[in-house]
Amino acid sequence: MPTTPAPTTAQTPTADPVPAAPPPRTGRRVVIVGGGFGGLAVARRLADTDLHVTLIDRSNHHLFQPLLYQVASAALAPADIAEPIRSIIGGHDNIEVRLAEVEAVQPAARSLSLRGGEELGWDWLVLAAGARHGYFGRPEWEAEAPGLKTLPDALEIRRRVLLAFEQAEWETDPHLRAALMTFVVVGGGPTGVELAGSIADIASQSLPGDFRRVDTRQTKVVLVEAGTSVLGSFAPPLREAAAEQLRALGVELRLGAPVEKLDEHGVVVKGERIAAGTVLWAAGNEASPIGRSLGVPLDRAGRVIVGPDLSVEGHPDLFVIGDQAHVEGPTGLVPGVAPAAQQMGRLVARNILADHQRRPRKAFSYRDKGSMATIGRSKAVAQLGRLRLRGYLAWLLWAIVHLATISTFRNRVLVFIKWGWAWFTFDRSSRIVWTQAPARPPPPPEG
Amino acid sequence: MPTTPAPTTAQTPTADPVPAAPPPRTGRRVVIVGGGFGGLAVARRLADTDLHVTLIDRSNHHLFQPLLYQVASAALAPADIAEPIRSIIGGHDNIEVRLAEVEAVQPAARSLSLRGGEELGWDWLVLAAGARHGYFGRPEWEAEAPGLKTLPDALEIRRRVLLAFEQAEWETDPHLRAALMTFVVVGGGPTGVELAGSIADIASQSLPGDFRRVDTRQTKVVLVEAGTSVLGSFAPPLREAAAEQLRALGVELRLGAPVEKLDEHGVVVKGERIAAGTVLWAAGNEASPIGRSLGVPLDRAGRVIVGPDLSVEGHPDLFVIGDQAHVEGPTGLVPGVAPAAQQMGRLVARNILADHQRRPRKAFSYRDKGSMATIGRSKAVAQLGRLRLRGYLAWLLWAIVHLATISTFRNRVLVFIKWGWAWFTFDRSSRIVWTQAPARPPPPPEG
Repeated sequence: MPTTPAPTTAQTPTADPVPAAPPPRTGRRVVIVGGGFGGLAVARRLADTDLHVTLIDRSNHHLFQPLLYQVASAALAPADIAEPIRSIIGGHDNIEVRLAEVEAVQPAARSLSLRGGEELGWDWLVLAAGARHGYFGRPEWEAEAPGLKTLPDALEIRRRVLLAFEQAEWETDPHLRAALMTFVVVGGGPTGVELAGSIADIASQSLPGDFRRVDTRQTKVVLVEAGTSVLGSFAPPLREAAAEQLRALGVELRLGAPVEKLDEHGVVVKGERIAAGTVLWAAGNEASPIGRSLGVPLDRAGRVIVGPDLSVEGHPDLFVIGDQAHVEGPTGLVPGVAPAAQQMGRLVARNILADHQRRPRKAFSYRDKGSMATIGRSKAVAQLGRLRLRGYLAWLLWAIVHLATISTFRNRVLVFIKWGWAWFTFDRSSRIVWTQAPARPPPPPEG
Repeated sequence: MPTTPAPTTAQTPTADPVPAAPPPRTGRRVVIVGGGFGGLAVARRLADTDLHVTLIDRSNHHLFQPLLYQVASAALAPADIAEPIRSIIGGHDNIEVRLAEVEAVQPAARSLSLRGGEELGWDWLVLAAGARHGYFGRPEWEAEAPGLKTLPDALEIRRRVLLAFEQAEWETDPHLRAALMTFVVVGGGPTGVELAGSIADIASQSLPGDFRRVDTRQTKVVLVEAGTSVLGSFAPPLREAAAEQLRALGVELRLGAPVEKLDEHGVVVKGERIAAGTVLWAAGNEASPIGRSLGVPLDRAGRVIVGPDLSVEGHPDLFVIGDQAHVEGPTGLVPGVAPAAQQMGRLVARNILADHQRRPRKAFSYRDKGSMATIGRSKAVAQLGRLRLRGYLAWLLWAIVHLATISTFRNRVLVFIKWGWAWFTFDRSSRIVWTQAPARPPPPPEG
């Protein structure tokens, strides 16, 4: 890409075909950082008002994260769960979309700086830049054990899982072969449970016909959790149901087992070495580093502590929502789930409009829409208040809710078709690996 | 991935769950290098015979290359045009699939070496490793101008094209903005014509609603060809029709214009500098470097010269087919197209079986199944013998032929749906960019 104009000798003279219009100023300026569930919720509520909204994201798409593990397990393709932000939100006259990376925010000056140096001013700022996995003070573990937060993550996991079987097929050393057929997933929350379950499922249902020298049904999947139970945020009976369903799928559990050592041979937990060719990370939580530039109190995971109206103390025009925010609700910390981010986004948009129209703000009140986690291809656990479901019924509810909330009709149709196909044929249709990256993923982008 | 066994202290003892069976030897051994159209055709014809076949490819999937340009132009997703080789061919008892990279062949010893050092012996060897683009002795141009032969290529092109518009949207310098909205495609064969046409199409039909400050309909696409005409292998009336259709789409042609200079500012052809942020390469042809290790005559593009039975002179058990082979037909060099590779593959399989059953071999006879090239979303040119079609009818024929030859029912359904959707909505559904690679593609793998 050129960064300086081309030399002018012997150039074909052309009139400038694309005169740039100055940014329209029909009101005061709102900047939203992050095009996930939270940021989009803010933008949607401010669409077609007389505020001028700029939504900044470092990728060009909104990711439907709840289904990311299915891209990792080769059931879905990346485009099935991603939609260009411009398609979702860019059609409104008062909303601009910008592909850029925010490096720091200057709350007092009401400005922020992008990678590359450009500075933008804002009248209200909403930070919705999310969180990534945390490695508990061991950043060197990340190269060995990728997490699952972005599409590159999911594709890297897919690559490692499928190639582990390819290597095992031709490996002559029996110990090495057994290690290649062993997968460790660290973290017993919904992401870890879903990932472990789907790997066990693909190994036992979809891949056996593909390989001849190894029996993929002998795959060992080990789910490692530091706490005493998987799905700790669920009601105890559902935790038990999930553990049962995982074992029925062939997943081994190691509970009360924080990772002591992690290297290219596998992990050590509770003094036991588990030899594994693939270790996947679904634990820990680290809010976006942008929060650190604010100079305001953060919690241990780097989340920005906000008040009842979701703004930062001392900076009423600076809001933080979603996984990046630390919000105390009546039953404790508001969890980092999509419905919470959306509710926060809508509340912040309401408060910004209230400011603009000189009305009082409102406090955030979290409404728990329940939690769900799938285990394998057709089982799940789900809870909503006192309602608890498990097994096939929970999975059906999960499928309906997720299909309904995928943001585009086209993707809904495609995902529905793929799930239907997979249900009938046990086929994992997206078993394509094409990333030619080296075994170690690239370092995460800065900022 | 571990390459040495894990340390044995404190290990959980397990019986070896996956005893490796020795490779079955029910006949003599055929090794096929390459899982493209040619290699798969050989394997299919040798399936369920008493020969033992090993198919080696360095990726895990077979790629339907004729539609690769649609992944680049964001109309299709990678998995739509790729299928795991194991799914296609791995189910037969006498066929093994191996993910590996062949580095060199030793014809006299009847062996070949894989990256990593392992050596394999063969009784018959079929090289079907294809070709990549050639940069006419200017390998440094490759970093600036990616080609279109693999899925990573297509995704890199998609990334550059979509991000060029994102950059143009926010670029304040008018010259730089115009350059960012200019795309140069080098090479007027079918690949270049299809790529140029689809970029012009996406810019004028699908993207205008996405961007606000730049009018994507002002995009300039320039197709550069060293020869005097585009589609030089087509009949003259069709070459003219293609040129007309391209111009109608807004593509500018520079004919008789070999590239003199190529850098990050664009290209220089016929003394004229065309300032372009994106240059794409669809020219030249360089057969797989494996051919060089044979020590036999090659043509200027590195293709291995073979005799009438498609074997190499002096090495009757060594066959080369497809884009990697130089085969003289009655009307000249057999072109590097999918039907030719498939016909060669079938003939080689026949000759191997003939050897095995002590019958005489047969000479190759190319049957031209015609040529087609699309221009934009609903026009094409097609020729078969004396039959010549252009415009919408040619496109319909193209669509039917390509849908019918996609190797899996599932992909046929998905591609059909996506084409239907795009036809009705002008939507380019796969406008997702997620590769976080740097702007310059990684160097091509060795071997």
